[in-house]
Amino acid sequence: MAGNSFGTLYRLSSFGESHGAAIGGVIDGCPPNIEIDLEAIRTEMRRRRPGQSAIVTQRKEEDEVEFLSGIFEGKTTGAPIGFIIRNSDQKSHDYDHLKDAFRPSHADYTYHEKYGHRDHRGGGRSSARETASRVVAGAIAKQVLSHIKVRAFVSSVGDIFIDKPYQQLDLDAVDSNDVRCPDTATAEKMEALIREIRKQGDTIGGTVTCVIEGVPAGWGEPVFDKLHAQLGKAMLSINAVKGFEFGSGFCGARMKGSEHNDLFNPDGSTKSNLSGGIQGGISNGMDIYFRVAFKPVATLIREQEVLTASGEIVMQQGKGRHDPCVVPRAVPIVEAMAAMVLADFYLIDNSYPHSK
Amino acid sequence: MAGNSFGTLYRLSSFGESHGAAIGGVIDGCPPNIEIDLEAIRTEMRRRRPGQSAIVTQRKEEDEVEFLSGIFEGKTTGAPIGFIIRNSDQKSHDYDHLKDAFRPSHADYTYHEKYGHRDHRGGGRSSARETASRVVAGAIAKQVLSHIKVRAFVSSVGDIFIDKPYQQLDLDAVDSNDVRCPDTATAEKMEALIREIRKQGDTIGGTVTCVIEGVPAGWGEPVFDKLHAQLGKAMLSINAVKGFEFGSGFCGARMKGSEHNDLFNPDGSTKSNLSGGIQGGISNGMDIYFRVAFKPVATLIREQEVLTASGEIVMQQGKGRHDPCVVPRAVPIVEAMAAMVLADFYLIDNSYPHSK
Amino acid sequence: MAGNSFGTLYRLSSFGESHGAAIGGVIDGCPPNIEIDLEAIRTEMRRRRPGQSAIVTQRKEEDEVEFLSGIFEGKTTGAPIGFIIRNSDQKSHDYDHLKDAFRPSHADYTYHEKYGHRDHRGGGRSSARETASRVVAGAIAKQVLSHIKVRAFVSSVGDIFIDKPYQQLDLDAVDSNDVRCPDTATAEKMEALIREIRKQGDTIGGTVTCVIEGVPAGWGEPVFDKLHAQLGKAMLSINAVKGFEFGSGFCGARMKGSEHNDLFNPDGSTKSNLSGGIQGGISNGMDIYFRVAFKPVATLIREQEVLTASGEIVMQQGKGRHDPCVVPRAVPIVEAMAAMVLADFYLIDNSYPHSK
Amino acid sequence: MAGNSFGTLYRLSSFGESHGAAIGGVIDGCPPNIEIDLEAIRTEMRRRRPGQSAIVTQRKEEDEVEFLSGIFEGKTTGAPIGFIIRNSDQKSHDYDHLKDAFRPSHADYTYHEKYGHRDHRGGGRSSARETASRVVAGAIAKQVLSHIKVRAFVSSVGDIFIDKPYQQLDLDAVDSNDVRCPDTATAEKMEALIREIRKQGDTIGGTVTCVIEGVPAGWGEPVFDKLHAQLGKAMLSINAVKGFEFGSGFCGARMKGSEHNDLFNPDGSTKSNLSGGIQGGISNGMDIYFRVAFKPVATLIREQEVLTASGEIVMQQGKGRHDPCVVPRAVPIVEAMAAMVLADFYLIDNSYPHSK
Repeated sequence: MAGNSFGTLYRLSSFGESHGAAIGGVIDGCPPNIEIDLEAIRTEMRRRRPGQSAIVTQRKEEDEVEFLSGIFEGKTTGAPIGFIIRNSDQKSHDYDHLKDAFRPSHADYTYHEKYGHRDHRGGGRSSARETASRVVAGAIAKQVLSHIKVRAFVSSVGDIFIDKPYQQLDLDAVDSNDVRCPDTATAEKMEALIREIRKQGDTIGGTVTCVIEGVPAGWGEPVFDKLHAQLGKAMLSINAVKGFEFGSGFCGARMKGSEHNDLFNPDGSTKSNLSGGIQGGISNGMDIYFRVAFKPVATLIREQEVLTASGEIVMQQGKGRHDPCVVPRAVPIVEAMAAMVLADFYLIDNSYPHSK
Repeated sequence: MAGNSFGTLYRLSSFGESHGAAIGGVIDGCPPNIEIDLEAIRTEMRRRRPGQSAIVTQRKEEDEVEFLSGIFEGKTTGAPIGFIIRNSDQKSHDYDHLKDAFRPSHADYTYHEKYGHRDHRGGGRSSARETASRVVAGAIAKQVLSHIKVRAFVSSVGDIFIDKPYQQLDLDAVDSNDVRCPDTATAEKMEALIREIRKQGDTIGGTVTCVIEGVPAGWGEPVFDKLHAQLGKAMLSINAVKGFEFGSGFCGARMKGSEHNDLFNPDGSTKSNLSGGIQGGISNGMDIYFRVAFKPVATLIREQEVLTASGEIVMQQGKGRHDPCVVPRAVPIVEAMAAMVLADFYLIDNSYPHSK
Repeated sequence: MAGNSFGTLYRLSSFGESHGAAIGGVIDGCPPNIEIDLEAIRTEMRRRRPGQSAIVTQRKEEDEVEFLSGIFEGKTTGAPIGFIIRNSDQKSHDYDHLKDAFRPSHADYTYHEKYGHRDHRGGGRSSARETASRVVAGAIAKQVLSHIKVRAFVSSVGDIFIDKPYQQLDLDAVDSNDVRCPDTATAEKMEALIREIRKQGDTIGGTVTCVIEGVPAGWGEPVFDKLHAQLGKAMLSINAVKGFEFGSGFCGARMKGSEHNDLFNPDGSTKSNLSGGIQGGISNGMDIYFRVAFKPVATLIREQEVLTASGEIVMQQGKGRHDPCVVPRAVPIVEAMAAMVLADFYLIDNSYPHSK
Repeated sequence: MAGNSFGTLYRLSSFGESHGAAIGGVIDGCPPNIEIDLEAIRTEMRRRRPGQSAIVTQRKEEDEVEFLSGIFEGKTTGAPIGFIIRNSDQKSHDYDHLKDAFRPSHADYTYHEKYGHRDHRGGGRSSARETASRVVAGAIAKQVLSHIKVRAFVSSVGDIFIDKPYQQLDLDAVDSNDVRCPDTATAEKMEALIREIRKQGDTIGGTVTCVIEGVPAGWGEPVFDKLHAQLGKAMLSINAVKGFEFGSGFCGARMKGSEHNDLFNPDGSTKSNLSGGIQGGISNGMDIYFRVAFKPVATLIREQEVLTASGEIVMQQGKGRHDPCVVPRAVPIVEAMAAMVLADFYLIDNSYPHSK
């Protein structure tokens, strides 16, 4: 138990189920005297929100954040920031057919086994609805780290990949299309694929790449709390994530040292940055980048087998309003989790006097 | 700071540099009355040890563990288990040439930037020497979980991959060859490649796959401390790791939901186990499996560019005794970290009464 | 920062200021399938509430708890329990005179020094308003531990002390008078004193004693997380507390070992229980009891010196509606914190299999 | 479990039993580049050591600390500091008579109940031998906080109290007598009492007062991790402690607000410092002071009743070499724990930028 907090000095404690009264959280450890841009938070919420475009779920969630504490006269006070987001569009009846059914590749079965009961309403705590609280905490973390750019984008949908390194992309253009892929030609292909998949009542996986600029050398805490280890945990804690790699990643495992070594320039910067901005778990001042794999959404709008509580396999028609592809909406969640990890290490790194 | 502990209820606090007096750790939270098999611990240490075969570093470390507390009359007492491993083969002079040099893709530079000083002796705290303490804590965790099998193996070296699913491999045969690849034909090719690479003074990356059998449904703590998120953090905290994936992993990101969904059998088991034994962050009773990417070792036994403290790029000849490929020795470390994660969740899951 | 969470496995993360929109919290780690008695929670809230009797502050707070998550169909689900309590009676203007003044023995000055700003509205985060969230989390902890009795009472007000050991008191009668002193004759004297003190515009300190029955032998985690060390921290974290003692307490420091030693009966129970139910940091199965010292409330309804932000000492008349004596309302808070400590140790103690 | 670590950013993980091979610990989070004065550490160890004077136990422990990591060329590196202290004078046979006996007011019985086994050798993990590790970590914490003075002294033994406020004492003279009472006349009476008590084969309790000078305003983390709450937990975790009070303490509970309020001087300092240097859980820049109650040592060198494992009460003669009064040796332990608490808050307070 007690797995609903993330971070040491900058910490989110999250609560809420998809079909309860509200979700929300407590952000503890936000430094005082930071001017909070509420509109920037709303923007992030809109980027995550269902119904934002034609290629995501048409479910409606207002996602209006109400801040209850920790902000006074527009600035953080150093006290914990409590916030809630009411659940407005709770079509719980959409889920009545699930009352006695465990859907494949969902958390229905494991929650039932772990907790000995069933909250069948839209996934309960296991629903990605919970990630809205992460986006709030991440949006504030971004404001704590106003000198750092944390930008993610969709790098693949199914077999359609961006075939350029991120340096050749305009990361300011990520939100210029619905897929959140900064390469327009590729974005169009991705969007066409997602529309096709949705027509089939099916879903498709994809990857999100995140690039972080402006982190100085020195963040990260060896040996267990390495910067990339915390980033990895943060990403793997997002619903539907199956893999994480940074820098050269799995490709690096196929390379020779003489190819892979990331040679220095005289100023301490490096040439290839196959390191991904991190050496020995500590940032080296270069761009940090990593890639996250999302499986296809498990809920299909077509018939599939489910397991009943009494141990029968029956066919069931998917209902509700689901995403054909989760990655466009995952982009702000990836950024939010990354920003929270960075805010934590920023504070930890500050904690002792050093010569830098 | 304070990043040198791992786990909540079963926790290792690790200390020690490669060329200090000793490394070691404190294992807090090990349940009492567990019979400790010291020989099994030694076996794990030998699997990690340098000099164990012709294809790993010929550096000698005795790796003799001395237990100082927490074990009485052959059993754990519930008190913390303190242990040390003396550093016997400290050829610090091998590293004198590094005193003013930052090697590419090492932690030399980042440690210097973070801590404002330099411990040039073999990497200091950033050396993989530290993983010996993890192997001790993991070997004891395995004994806490005697009903669970945690077995890892080398699944690729460079471009040589095992081309079979793990179910077709004899995981009891992992240690039958020096590479720790249970597929004999592939193992031979891998070994030949490693020998060739070493001859070139170069190094090569690889991957380790880990399979865990016997975990009951219900382990893992959503939403942040998901079972796979902790496994991912654990693996990413190992030196040289660049990526982690479980179940379908990055391949899953290319699939459709209708292909990917892991349909149930009437007994609650599933058909494809593309889920990798985990749903919604909680074990589902199926095998857990994941794959870890290791980059090539950065130290080459041939000339390469290094950065000096005064900001010059100079050529330097690598010295010391290094691994041409780290994955054979990484196998017991991967198992150790996995066992520690599992021991922690086992204790947490026990903590409240449930119907199971 | 990040000091707003309490507990390891049963954990409250609290938020909210006295004059913000709401206070509340997240209870993480509450076991699933526990039937929640909402009326029992309301009862505890009423015991803490201002305006409950003639001898406490006449400020009105509705203290209506809204549960937002973690409870479904009347039972806990194992998911975090989020809750809020709206601040209804926010007479912020009562505090306008404090805008530039630091009151003596308040947190005004230290919060200003720590956070670099001022939330002058009724103490902000430092207000005892925050303890309402503790009472919610404690009331639920009591329901987790339904077999354990946690009962506190007022043992002194100023120089008026109960002169009997707790065994001679009827602890079920604590709430039979406004002071919450189970000895009727003493309660009357205390009440008279409090009325007199209030008439003077002054305040008075007091002590609360807590008795816990039904804790089995074995709870508590040496060496740092001793049962009484956590109880002590819990009590010292309550506003206005200046001291904590358990068992023989400060009196024990004046005794000889031959007087103090708590001899065994053949069944493992002990004779004097000067130990206070705890040996070596672990419960021994006897009653646990401890005493908590509360200083007099610092806000007086008469003129006193305050420090202005510009460094002048000026006379100021106290306003607002304050308690002449805080201990009657502190009783449920002491119980709540004790129950939270016990719930945590109960879960931790469960975590490993033992022979008991 | 897992109660053997103390602190968040400056953290000691302690291990070891009184009659095992060694005790020791890992100090994680010590800032880098701090010059370590080994002689100062040894001095603290000598202050705690048995056999140091005629009025303490004549048991001999060399208490030679061996540092294994984290210090290089005389300075901390930022890596964890591992250390061990061998147990040299292990007269385990002194304890054979205890094999089947539970001594009154010891942890024998509760450890047996909790862990389901018995380590009868001198108390095992519950022995105060463990506090040697705390003294090491505290001595280093003092060096981190070189601008802060943490000084404790014996303020009472039995009914003999110092009758002066600490401001009238010469705290540099604490170690000028064996009792560690800076008031010479009182010290002589205390020493005479202890000698008398020892002659009787009995023991006596006492109190230790600690005064901390030089802490700036702003340390401490409300609402649960208040500075005095952490100090209280730290003190209560020391063997034999029964109570903790700071500032006015239990006396404050008898006072009126008009007497107790700690009026400001124009410079922000206060007049009475009944607050004990802490307001609302945060230091206010004044001296911090608190008092700790120690019960009499439970082991008597005369016959007393013990409980056998088979449930009989038998008479047993105490053996071994025990302290007639623990407080003189407790002085450095109190200082060590206080220094650790302060080091932690120092680092946490540094973690965010503020205007101070």
